[in-house]
Amino acid sequence: MRETWIVGAASSRYGKMAETAREAATRVAMEAIRDAGLEPKQIGHTFVANCFGLAEHQAHVGPLINSGLGIPEVPSVTVESACSSSSAALHEAFVQVAGGFVDSALVVGAERLSHLTTQTATTFFAIAADYPFETRNGATFPGLYATLASAYRAAYRTTPEMFGAIAIKNHANAARNPHAHLQKEISMETYLASPIVASPLRLYDCCPFSDGAAAVVVSARESIGRPAREPLVVRASARAGAVTGLHDRPDLLGLPSTRTAGARAFRQARLEPREIDFLEVHDCFTIAEVLALEDLGFFPKGTAARESGDGVTARDGRLPVNPSGGLKAKGHPVSATGVGQVVEIFEQVNGRAGGREVPRTGTALAHNVGATGGSCSVHIFSRR
Amino acid sequence: MRETWIVGAASSRYGKMAETAREAATRVAMEAIRDAGLEPKQIGHTFVANCFGLAEHQAHVGPLINSGLGIPEVPSVTVESACSSSSAALHEAFVQVAGGFVDSALVVGAERLSHLTTQTATTFFAIAADYPFETRNGATFPGLYATLASAYRAAYRTTPEMFGAIAIKNHANAARNPHAHLQKEISMETYLASPIVASPLRLYDCCPFSDGAAAVVVSARESIGRPAREPLVVRASARAGAVTGLHDRPDLLGLPSTRTAGARAFRQARLEPREIDFLEVHDCFTIAEVLALEDLGFFPKGTAARESGDGVTARDGRLPVNPSGGLKAKGHPVSATGVGQVVEIFEQVNGRAGGREVPRTGTALAHNVGATGGSCSVHIFSRR
Repeated sequence: MRETWIVGAASSRYGKMAETAREAATRVAMEAIRDAGLEPKQIGHTFVANCFGLAEHQAHVGPLINSGLGIPEVPSVTVESACSSSSAALHEAFVQVAGGFVDSALVVGAERLSHLTTQTATTFFAIAADYPFETRNGATFPGLYATLASAYRAAYRTTPEMFGAIAIKNHANAARNPHAHLQKEISMETYLASPIVASPLRLYDCCPFSDGAAAVVVSARESIGRPAREPLVVRASARAGAVTGLHDRPDLLGLPSTRTAGARAFRQARLEPREIDFLEVHDCFTIAEVLALEDLGFFPKGTAARESGDGVTARDGRLPVNPSGGLKAKGHPVSATGVGQVVEIFEQVNGRAGGREVPRTGTALAHNVGATGGSCSVHIFSRR
Repeated sequence: MRETWIVGAASSRYGKMAETAREAATRVAMEAIRDAGLEPKQIGHTFVANCFGLAEHQAHVGPLINSGLGIPEVPSVTVESACSSSSAALHEAFVQVAGGFVDSALVVGAERLSHLTTQTATTFFAIAADYPFETRNGATFPGLYATLASAYRAAYRTTPEMFGAIAIKNHANAARNPHAHLQKEISMETYLASPIVASPLRLYDCCPFSDGAAAVVVSARESIGRPAREPLVVRASARAGAVTGLHDRPDLLGLPSTRTAGARAFRQARLEPREIDFLEVHDCFTIAEVLALEDLGFFPKGTAARESGDGVTARDGRLPVNPSGGLKAKGHPVSATGVGQVVEIFEQVNGRAGGREVPRTGTALAHNVGATGGSCSVHIFSRR
């Protein structure tokens, strides 16, 4: 297996895009290729994530993006794994490059949903749940994650303020991130006064609907002489699945796919959680950040909410989590989210995270979940 | 790169399914795994194709299929490349196995559209074209392929009977295929009397809308001691893209992505067209079979329609093409089609094509197109 690097990265601002997903994807893809100091013709395969192309009447978007880049003959596929689509795309790109099938691959995720109503978008999202058991009976993701939050609160001694602290921390980070959708700080008063979306989740426990596009270039070390940027070494690219429907799981106090993918990733990387300097984790709801930190092995079960409340995961804490602002405040343009996490890590390492730098950037982990954990990807990166 | 085999295969009957795509995919996946003499737990990664899950309110179907197989922890992705989705999935599976990332992978394609009206289904399909230039202006695939057929007829001396012969041949083959949607022979009179769908294409130039599911298991030679079936050796797995919109191509007398992918495949396999014993090609319309045979290098430009009219591509001809009945008559359940072609080749090699056997089965080629050639996959197989 060849040593494989992230060599270039780019992102749109998350939020409301005037461009279509196709246009934004093409633009950020070109920026990522240029950032890597490469030419489009050096790309051997394009991996696209774009779950909701139907909302723009456009599937089969890979050839359109490649044509926009001037490389129509290059193969492409669109990869879907719900909210973990672009990290799944990154995994397949890693396999192609590490396995020697291509020297460089492009991974680009893009989504545009802001032209839909919230009702339509929520319904659209819900097709990633288990239809006959969940969606058909009225479940959407706020409700499903509220179920997870209720189970956690029933099992462990928590306070609303512990979850509020996660939202406040991620908003504070996003306020320093020019790519972020919600570039504003919030206070505990604002959090506690925000309306209930699905009990116990309040508005500020929930990520926004965002448009956005993000791209990275993955290259084999041996195919890149002097990289234009400091590369991220891909130390692990691991994925796992799990039973999708919450009704069919032995317990609701974690996501089994995070545990499996996390354990695989640490084994591949030959690292332990204590050796990771900072994380981007999938915090579609504040409870999701708590579960991620426990399932990945950073905190014992039932303690991550309290530790978060104590500031351990702040940008200047012992273990910075979501310096980008996370899905919660940077935003969650479904198919851009996973690769967008890698953009953040690349920017931190390359000194482009002005104002939101984390103290140590030797190793980092990105964690991206599909639905309520039907799938999960964990990537671990290090500096050379 | 490890020698990689197709070791098991299964298919539903194409046509109208009572099952959902998820149910049918799970069932044929289990059949393919059993056909290979494997247990589900030996599958390392599942690649799913299912373009139109939204028509059943279900995306993120991989974890559901894997859960049905009793292997929820196994990673999965859904791969989309329009009508070539499942051959694109097969390519990524090949890469994972040949590259040593997993020993066995499952590839399953499934589609259910028959509960929609023809109007809705045609509109759904059309999102794989170039929306702002084609779909938004009213183009759907019958019209786009009619444009290709018109260009071909204007450039070369052809008769309607030449295209009719392709339809008649594929219907004759499908009449002997228990998996086929349209298991009936047609006559030249029937063909010539059938109504115009989009001039010059008549009803019997067009494939039907089909439901269906098909699956294969891909394994590394070294991980399989004594295969339960005679394996297909994957000699080449090649893909290519092209400009999607017809308006933006230098000519309309072929599909550039077929030429690129075909040339790549023959180079990988170190074979020439004259060494291939039989083919499954993408004949969504009769013109598509003609273009495929020319673009792949089996016939000089402008001659494949005439040769087809002369019976060269019949099951007992010099070069049997689409012994399964092809998309034209076996049917075209979009995301099952590409892997279904491989099922046919596997069945031919394993003596399960009773009544539609081709005379020689040493080498075979499968050709699967996305849209009007925005993408294309070509796989070449041989017996050991």
